Amino acid sequence: MGNFFEDFFMGQEIVHPLPRTISEGDVSLYIAFTGSRFALHSSDIVAKELGYEKRPIDDILMFHLTFGKSVQDISLNAIANLGYAEIRFPTSVYVGDTVSMSSTVIGLKENSNGKSGVVYVHSIGKNQRDEEVLNFKRWVMVHKRDTQTLSKISEIPSFKEATPILEKINIPKIDEVNTDATGGKFFFEDYEVGERLNHPEGITIDNSDHTLATKLYQNNAKVHFNDHMMKSSPMGQRLMYGGIIISIARAISFNGLQNAQWVYAINSGAHCNPTYAGDTIYAYTEILEKLEHSREDIGLLRLRTIAVKNQASSEIEQPKDEEGKYLKNVVLDLDYTVIIPKKKTGK
Amino acid sequence: MGNFFEDFFMGQEIVHPLPRTISEGDVSLYIAFTGSRFALHSSDIVAKELGYEKRPIDDILMFHLTFGKSVQDISLNAIANLGYAEIRFPTSVYVGDTVSMSSTVIGLKENSNGKSGVVYVHSIGKNQRDEEVLNFKRWVMVHKRDTQTLSKISEIPSFKEATPILEKINIPKIDEVNTDATGGKFFFEDYEVGERLNHPEGITIDNSDHTLATKLYQNNAKVHFNDHMMKSSPMGQRLMYGGIIISIARAISFNGLQNAQWVYAINSGAHCNPTYAGDTIYAYTEILEKLEHSREDIGLLRLRTIAVKNQASSEIEQPKDEEGKYLKNVVLDLDYTVIIPKKKTGK
Amino acid sequence: MGNFFEDFFMGQEIVHPLPRTISEGDVSLYIAFTGSRFALHSSDIVAKELGYEKRPIDDILMFHLTFGKSVQDISLNAIANLGYAEIRFPTSVYVGDTVSMSSTVIGLKENSNGKSGVVYVHSIGKNQRDEEVLNFKRWVMVHKRDTQTLSKISEIPSFKEATPILEKINIPKIDEVNTDATGGKFFFEDYEVGERLNHPEGITIDNSDHTLATKLYQNNAKVHFNDHMMKSSPMGQRLMYGGIIISIARAISFNGLQNAQWVYAINSGAHCNPTYAGDTIYAYTEILEKLEHSREDIGLLRLRTIAVKNQASSEIEQPKDEEGKYLKNVVLDLDYTVIIPKKKTGK
Repeated sequence: MGNFFEDFFMGQEIVHPLPRTISEGDVSLYIAFTGSRFALHSSDIVAKELGYEKRPIDDILMFHLTFGKSVQDISLNAIANLGYAEIRFPTSVYVGDTVSMSSTVIGLKENSNGKSGVVYVHSIGKNQRDEEVLNFKRWVMVHKRDTQTLSKISEIPSFKEATPILEKINIPKIDEVNTDATGGKFFFEDYEVGERLNHPEGITIDNSDHTLATKLYQNNAKVHFNDHMMKSSPMGQRLMYGGIIISIARAISFNGLQNAQWVYAINSGAHCNPTYAGDTIYAYTEILEKLEHSREDIGLLRLRTIAVKNQASSEIEQPKDEEGKYLKNVVLDLDYTVIIPKKKTGK
Repeated sequence: MGNFFEDFFMGQEIVHPLPRTISEGDVSLYIAFTGSRFALHSSDIVAKELGYEKRPIDDILMFHLTFGKSVQDISLNAIANLGYAEIRFPTSVYVGDTVSMSSTVIGLKENSNGKSGVVYVHSIGKNQRDEEVLNFKRWVMVHKRDTQTLSKISEIPSFKEATPILEKINIPKIDEVNTDATGGKFFFEDYEVGERLNHPEGITIDNSDHTLATKLYQNNAKVHFNDHMMKSSPMGQRLMYGGIIISIARAISFNGLQNAQWVYAINSGAHCNPTYAGDTIYAYTEILEKLEHSREDIGLLRLRTIAVKNQASSEIEQPKDEEGKYLKNVVLDLDYTVIIPKKKTGK
Repeated sequence: MGNFFEDFFMGQEIVHPLPRTISEGDVSLYIAFTGSRFALHSSDIVAKELGYEKRPIDDILMFHLTFGKSVQDISLNAIANLGYAEIRFPTSVYVGDTVSMSSTVIGLKENSNGKSGVVYVHSIGKNQRDEEVLNFKRWVMVHKRDTQTLSKISEIPSFKEATPILEKINIPKIDEVNTDATGGKFFFEDYEVGERLNHPEGITIDNSDHTLATKLYQNNAKVHFNDHMMKSSPMGQRLMYGGIIISIARAISFNGLQNAQWVYAINSGAHCNPTYAGDTIYAYTEILEKLEHSREDIGLLRLRTIAVKNQASSEIEQPKDEEGKYLKNVVLDLDYTVIIPKKKTGK
């Protein structure tokens, strides 16, 4: 039934149950849910041209399948999923791999009202060879069991503003990118800091789409599935899992970022407003930073993708109003870093 | 267009067409439809720890894929699917296996009005090596072609109240259950006859969910797919395939029965009330019986799972009212037997 | 953002990006979308009995996965998809194969109003061994960029009324068809020219069904996904991808054509009226022609399948009214050719 604030302690290690074997079915369903077209993940030919034996799993799909495991222990009864930071995807995952996850409690802060507290965890996902495939921190607000006794615990960890870029990047050396296959002509050198890409597509999400996806990820947070319960909540209906919006925004960003086929890191993200069945998601992307790496074949782009509901992304100038509050149609503010080959690799 | 009562005769053998190869796509879709989290079926690591080479197919998914084959010959135009009994799952099925089915007519009873009759069949599903993977009996009421001539046939077979437990149970010997992986700490010894588990989750089913599932099973009973036809029926809309509810109830029962990963038998079941798109399914389970087996590593639990629509299962005390009639929100009364390891296997 | 009329020139060769590896997930999803029951595509046992190593991909699924690639370059901003012709499926495709596509411009006709023009292309799909798997022609009306300057170009190619039947047909020699497995007793000799089959089934399509399918095919034509945009169009809602209707009609035609498991060609097709979520699709088929082939084990049937929405197909006598206009419920008029074994192969 989910853990309370008192069930956590500093340094606690939690092995999340339910290791998950990833299958071809998951990959196809992910394409069906998102319409994603990044060639590396849907074409063995492109994957081989890029130095892989076969197509790896989309990083965001892997995130959902792995992350879903931690919901039961960490956030099943969360009052709020407050944030995440320093998300990294250290190693590619393939069909047939089995991912599992564990977390360490790295921070605890009791709220002054005595009713709840914030739990900070560092979660690590591994494959069946014990290699790290996912690494991130997140914090959630949970209820206290005993609202009378105050522990006054307040150990708050600090987070890096952006996920550090490691010396070693685990993707094959890229000799040549076949732009006839990837569908895009732009490489690292073609982007400028401050540039904005208005992705033209909009995708409408229905109830079956998002509930099938969230069930596939075995993410059992009730708010996403149980319409009967949600009807008597202030929302009045099922809330879409935030990961759905990340996936759709990433899929839409294909248009303009076709060769940025690797998500290196997610630095931070805000689910600014809720999304419900019937909403149409649009997105635009700003280039925040261009990062050189010791590898000569690739560079990294730090991006900010803003997802908007029921309004073309080109109509949104800034995601926040003058008081710094997110506009009511803005549903995602995602700061992340992608890997993109350099121009000389283009064919 | 489906068979009439006169098309059946005692001892008749019917080979149902359309053997079905089971794929990774079927497995992923089943998880997406139900949110099922039984580790044996979604993790090769857990399957190997339990003595398997790889994860077997969920027994209920296999049931749907195999059962679907008999609809065309037996129940396409059934007036009512009256019941089933003695369902057994003798051998595990894996991705790549091909299942097929045949039936023998074991009973025929003409109704006194001369308009219809009841057909009883014994159906057997086999894999590509001719090994039995499914074995059950069921009975359906079908129309007569000729309502004027009376045959007065009345050969009614008898059914066992519960599927017999065989001496040989075809699952690997279980040495150790990794409860960090399966997500549950409870074993055979931890359950008591009469105990009741209120599973907390509720899952809402939409039209695409249930029609995609039923089409995947190639179950072509019209009432599930054809909204145009159903709009002029007393139901006014598509009726959900009863198997959907069995699957959802089984998936929800994970919470409390995490280590009961094998369905040994279904003893009987009643689809007490119809379910439609938009309904939210809840469930609770009673422990009816604890059955020892000559194998020392496992025991069997006979369970009764009651599924309820649009009402938390904890709010239902008894599924029937004082007159023995099912409450209007009760949608499934399932009597089945699961295999669960004994305590000494726990880690 | 899609090409304009001026972006095309005679003889132009266009390599469509995004080669697509076909997976078991795609196959299962296709069955879930359509309920298709042709045994060759869902059973390895039947495939082996018919001389295959394993089950090949349904021809129409392969068409959608391959065709989807050309949308971005050819028809993303099409005013209208005017027609297609001479569609052939030269070689079977299997799970694990990667399909890609290229097109040659074979015709250009500027419209007299100067605002638009028609582009004719010849498109060829290949597998990873460079073998042709799909070959077709189609024409679309696209906007001109410059509506002031007239090119007066008018090079219109001619199309054959029916896709020619080649001497070599790339399917294994058929020794025996196990009708207990395929579910149908009828062979080439059993059909008569002029005969009409009223397929009894009707399948209702919901929004998630058709959008999941179209996204799976990575067909990114906006009209199918973006409800927000479509609400301000005359249609007022998302338009279903025409390929969905072809697939449903083909799946429904199983009933009566169980042994016609190969689509040899599509000669022409008209999407007579739009279909939207909630519509129920019915279909009937006329036998237009019986074609002998030098191979003695098979013959070909040229068929006309008419799909109808929200009305039983048996209620439609002719798809067009007296003035030659399609009735408002008729949604597809498909002229295609299937391969069917001859009677002596039946068992």
